[in-house]
Amino acid sequence: MKIILDGMGGDNAPASVVEGAILASKEIEHQILIIGKEELINKELKKYKYDENKILVADATEVISNDDAPVRAVRSKKDSSIVKGINMVKSGEGDVFISAGSTGALLAGGLFILGRIQGIDRPALACIYPIVGGNPSLLVDAGANADCKPNNLLEFGIMGNIYMEKVIGRTNPKVGLVNIGSEAAKGSTLTKAAYNLLEQSDMNFIGNVEAREVPKGACDVIVTDGFTGNVLLKLTEGMAWNILQVLKRKFTEGTKAKIGAALLLDKIKGLKKEFDYSEYGGAPILGVKGPIVKMHGSSSANAVKNTILKAIPYAEGKIVDIIQNSVLEIEEITLSEYDKF
Amino acid sequence: MKIILDGMGGDNAPASVVEGAILASKEIEHQILIIGKEELINKELKKYKYDENKILVADATEVISNDDAPVRAVRSKKDSSIVKGINMVKSGEGDVFISAGSTGALLAGGLFILGRIQGIDRPALACIYPIVGGNPSLLVDAGANADCKPNNLLEFGIMGNIYMEKVIGRTNPKVGLVNIGSEAAKGSTLTKAAYNLLEQSDMNFIGNVEAREVPKGACDVIVTDGFTGNVLLKLTEGMAWNILQVLKRKFTEGTKAKIGAALLLDKIKGLKKEFDYSEYGGAPILGVKGPIVKMHGSSSANAVKNTILKAIPYAEGKIVDIIQNSVLEIEEITLSEYDKF
Repeated sequence: MKIILDGMGGDNAPASVVEGAILASKEIEHQILIIGKEELINKELKKYKYDENKILVADATEVISNDDAPVRAVRSKKDSSIVKGINMVKSGEGDVFISAGSTGALLAGGLFILGRIQGIDRPALACIYPIVGGNPSLLVDAGANADCKPNNLLEFGIMGNIYMEKVIGRTNPKVGLVNIGSEAAKGSTLTKAAYNLLEQSDMNFIGNVEAREVPKGACDVIVTDGFTGNVLLKLTEGMAWNILQVLKRKFTEGTKAKIGAALLLDKIKGLKKEFDYSEYGGAPILGVKGPIVKMHGSSSANAVKNTILKAIPYAEGKIVDIIQNSVLEIEEITLSEYDKF
Repeated sequence: MKIILDGMGGDNAPASVVEGAILASKEIEHQILIIGKEELINKELKKYKYDENKILVADATEVISNDDAPVRAVRSKKDSSIVKGINMVKSGEGDVFISAGSTGALLAGGLFILGRIQGIDRPALACIYPIVGGNPSLLVDAGANADCKPNNLLEFGIMGNIYMEKVIGRTNPKVGLVNIGSEAAKGSTLTKAAYNLLEQSDMNFIGNVEAREVPKGACDVIVTDGFTGNVLLKLTEGMAWNILQVLKRKFTEGTKAKIGAALLLDKIKGLKKEFDYSEYGGAPILGVKGPIVKMHGSSSANAVKNTILKAIPYAEGKIVDIIQNSVLEIEEITLSEYDKF
């Protein structure tokens, strides 16, 4: 297997990307090809000892930044690491493309270069959602589609269910729909219709899940539109940050508190670690005809390493083919809705 | 002024409602009329010493529960505390109606009995949003309208701005739109259009606010549709609960941690208090022609007391009239949008 790694994406590129590749290469037998400005990448590589048969470099002279308009950038910057990297997956030269670059560009690249899986209306970003004191959930869609239709939410559920089962290894995952009430009749026009579709699927659909229950790990696959999903993810991040900041402040007020905090230091660090995205690997863009994994923009070398390690079962598991086969179910459910009229 | 208090709403009614009324009556000169099953309320009242000129009781034989379909309940249960209480505000017999009962029934009652303020398309629930280590924000809409149009969000902003300034007393409040990106062009069809409307208002509109920034107190008035608002509020509650539970568990693992936790006990309690809704008073239903305040269903006597105290400046401030006058601005902005075509 050959893993294509974007050397130019993210805040700490290429330094942490290269370091992450080196770390990962020590644990796997697969090849890692780093794509980007060759000179810069080689300069970073020189800092390390590594197996030259396992870490390769390919040149890409252009860079797509977060400020670029995604669609235009993908169409015009043909020699960028993102466009070239995704093309390598298309041609079969690589098996998976990993990048900490612009989500919009990765999505646009996936759509234009690889294309949608037939029958999937909207690809989605599936993101690991940290559960403090428990196994993480998977959030689909985490922000790729701000406006959704009911069948999109069904697709997100089916794709997320497959990823959770085949890649993360959770048997018979509980699939929940984010809603503002627990009863089937509650919610927006979108969630009410999506509920009906999800209920007809073969998945272990547990119904509506209120946002209050999400951080407690109420479901394994959290289905929601990209707007709500992004709000969920970012609010969780903001709340965790905020509470930890306030604890830090409170726990350093006065000598008594300082002694108490010193005794609890390892516990507090443990809590912080549970919110640390770098442990969990990246977020796959599900629904395009090839594996693309998006990493957090501020990914550390350790996060890059973990993303590489977790991308292997994703690419090996032929998830794209499995999703392709599940499309029949989606079509049957959405067609059955038409029968009602 | 006469405050009408629903004796039957909430999980702990009528006990905590009556106790809260007694507590409040010691701090104010206004009359409090408790409406509900007279016998039950009088039984509770007998437990206390109180000024009989300040606490009155009115009988209502029916109760609207959370399980009742709101619209049907308001239409059929004419002798319920909610319907009779709101009617008292309409007739001028009372100045404000406070209830811990069904949000849907309060909203339906407000709409059918008092009616919408002319020019306001959708009334909204404005809820205090706790900011740990800072002044609370106001979230509009917290869940009354699951499906919204852009002009609804403009209305929520304008009504929330007035409430924040006139009732909570924050000068020139910062009004922010919950969105999944900070730039004007980001977001859903709804938020992009709402941004344009809010930008044209006279308010101190600070633009888009990402969910990550909300718990840090990035804006005083948090404008969003009722679906997202409800998700924000409940996720905040769930995250706070979850982190406090995990802290509790971690801090009691081992002797060293137990000693540390004992030294930090007052700090941890202080943190818990900052999330305590009972300190903040209730949530007004803005946009109907009279003051209705919704309390949390599990309101304690202290929460009831605080809601009563904070409802006074709301009723006295003639907020309904001020909102009525601000409608002109809403109309001018939404009309100017038509000019663009």
